[in-house]
Amino acid sequence: MGVADLGCSSGPNSLTVISKIIHLAVTASRQMGRPVPELRVSLNDLPGNDFNDVFESLPGLYKKVKNDNGIESCYVSGVPGSFYGRLFPDKSLHFVHSSSSLHWLSQVPLGLETSSGTHLNKEKLYISKGSSASVIEAYQRQFHEDFLMFLRSRANEMVIKGRMVLSLMGRLSPNPCADEACYQWELLARALMSLAFDGLVKKEMIDSFNAPYYAPSPEEVKFLVEKEGSFLVDGVEAFEIEWDGGDSGVLEDSSGKRVAKTIRAVVEPMLAIHFDLNPVMMDELFRRYAKIIDDCFSETRFKYTNLVISFLKKS
Amino acid sequence: MGVADLGCSSGPNSLTVISKIIHLAVTASRQMGRPVPELRVSLNDLPGNDFNDVFESLPGLYKKVKNDNGIESCYVSGVPGSFYGRLFPDKSLHFVHSSSSLHWLSQVPLGLETSSGTHLNKEKLYISKGSSASVIEAYQRQFHEDFLMFLRSRANEMVIKGRMVLSLMGRLSPNPCADEACYQWELLARALMSLAFDGLVKKEMIDSFNAPYYAPSPEEVKFLVEKEGSFLVDGVEAFEIEWDGGDSGVLEDSSGKRVAKTIRAVVEPMLAIHFDLNPVMMDELFRRYAKIIDDCFSETRFKYTNLVISFLKKS
Repeated sequence: MGVADLGCSSGPNSLTVISKIIHLAVTASRQMGRPVPELRVSLNDLPGNDFNDVFESLPGLYKKVKNDNGIESCYVSGVPGSFYGRLFPDKSLHFVHSSSSLHWLSQVPLGLETSSGTHLNKEKLYISKGSSASVIEAYQRQFHEDFLMFLRSRANEMVIKGRMVLSLMGRLSPNPCADEACYQWELLARALMSLAFDGLVKKEMIDSFNAPYYAPSPEEVKFLVEKEGSFLVDGVEAFEIEWDGGDSGVLEDSSGKRVAKTIRAVVEPMLAIHFDLNPVMMDELFRRYAKIIDDCFSETRFKYTNLVISFLKKS
Repeated sequence: MGVADLGCSSGPNSLTVISKIIHLAVTASRQMGRPVPELRVSLNDLPGNDFNDVFESLPGLYKKVKNDNGIESCYVSGVPGSFYGRLFPDKSLHFVHSSSSLHWLSQVPLGLETSSGTHLNKEKLYISKGSSASVIEAYQRQFHEDFLMFLRSRANEMVIKGRMVLSLMGRLSPNPCADEACYQWELLARALMSLAFDGLVKKEMIDSFNAPYYAPSPEEVKFLVEKEGSFLVDGVEAFEIEWDGGDSGVLEDSSGKRVAKTIRAVVEPMLAIHFDLNPVMMDELFRRYAKIIDDCFSETRFKYTNLVISFLKKS
């Protein structure tokens, strides 16, 4: 049985899902009175991911799998590469999982500046309330192209009746400018603009930055699945997640600080490269971001929408 | 077609063999007028290996494979774990390669100290001219156990008629104390003893160190292959390699320095852990080692024996 986790990242959570998938596969086999299959588990991420860190946790995973399930026949490998393209041999996967990865595009959308170099998405980092149709279209075009490539690649790699479960940031609203889809970027843009106002960041750098990100609606995903043609969507769930995790006020940090920490963990590398911010300025940016969030949170408790979508490979 | 390189290490040579194997597989397929198979390539080493370094070179490999062979269907993964045990699913490999790895044992042989804690291999790091039968037996027992485990594991993982090519340090002499098999360790022991003589290393630390290494003869390997029973040895070649690579005197370093550099690259990590040597002392050790080698080299140009053995998986 071939299992793949696409965008496994590195750190303490990297093997959590895989460990659960193995446990479920073993339990299901036993309940059906079938022999436990040999499990081939592939952990995928981009070549720059810290696979050394992941691999150092593997002896612990093997021990856990043996203790929890009494099995030894589990073979884990690391597969570096972009999931927007082929990663595995034909018909080699029975179950594919990806969590919190597919909202990242393969590249910054093309068409966000004119041929003469004018930036179309000024003072913003992503789609926002005031986005022009051309900005929204550029983002949608890139997501559609990437997601179709993702589906086509997996369609070749998966066996008939194979299953895929994806979780990603998204929205329930049909409108790509809805707050649930982009308000965290809107407030981060405000924090950057306040640095620009104080002469600490060049405004032109904000104008030229566009996050390689897209939060789709379930209808958009379903449309692309039908267009590609190899899969059936057999389940969509949307989870609303409070920006600060909904934790109560007993925690030391304010809601804004906690949100800023989470977002920083994800976007700092790309901001550092584009804006060339030193650590002091990066701290200042996220201090201002936390403050802006706290000011907004007193009025509205913002929520992300997380989509979980289940697919069946057609015959 | 499943291909594995066991003990791939990291660095500029890591992908050289794999690149050649791919080229040969593609060329052979075309010569036979057959479609080029999808290639699943597994790179294995211990979990502590720098797989990040290996993975960062993969985009270059894919490019080379495409340019040289015009193919895209090559899927490379990293498989961390010890090859003295199962690494791959049943019957998933068609070709197995390992270079310069199988002379490393899974552990320091047991039985090199008595139950009362007396060291049996005093002032030496490996088998040497004066080794007692119990030291030689301890090393042989460990190699036999490890190599049988290696063969049993690969026997399960390889398809019938699968091929395996191993290259490792060895000897042509039936005598495990022959110079070709152990003289480099003998001289390294002398260098360490000279540090002990000067009070820079504790002699007890030399007494208690034993390299997890064994240089077998072709007969020993054949004996183990017959004992295990799943493979035929269909080729053995022995290459004599001059310690200093046989380079002429135009190079800047003396022969001793060049040999010391090569050996240092391999053994420094294990010496550093056991002897707790600081960098200055490590430099001094290998300075003395180089000097000792230069003194010996004026009389005899020592050679290693490298064995290359080809196996066929029986039906």
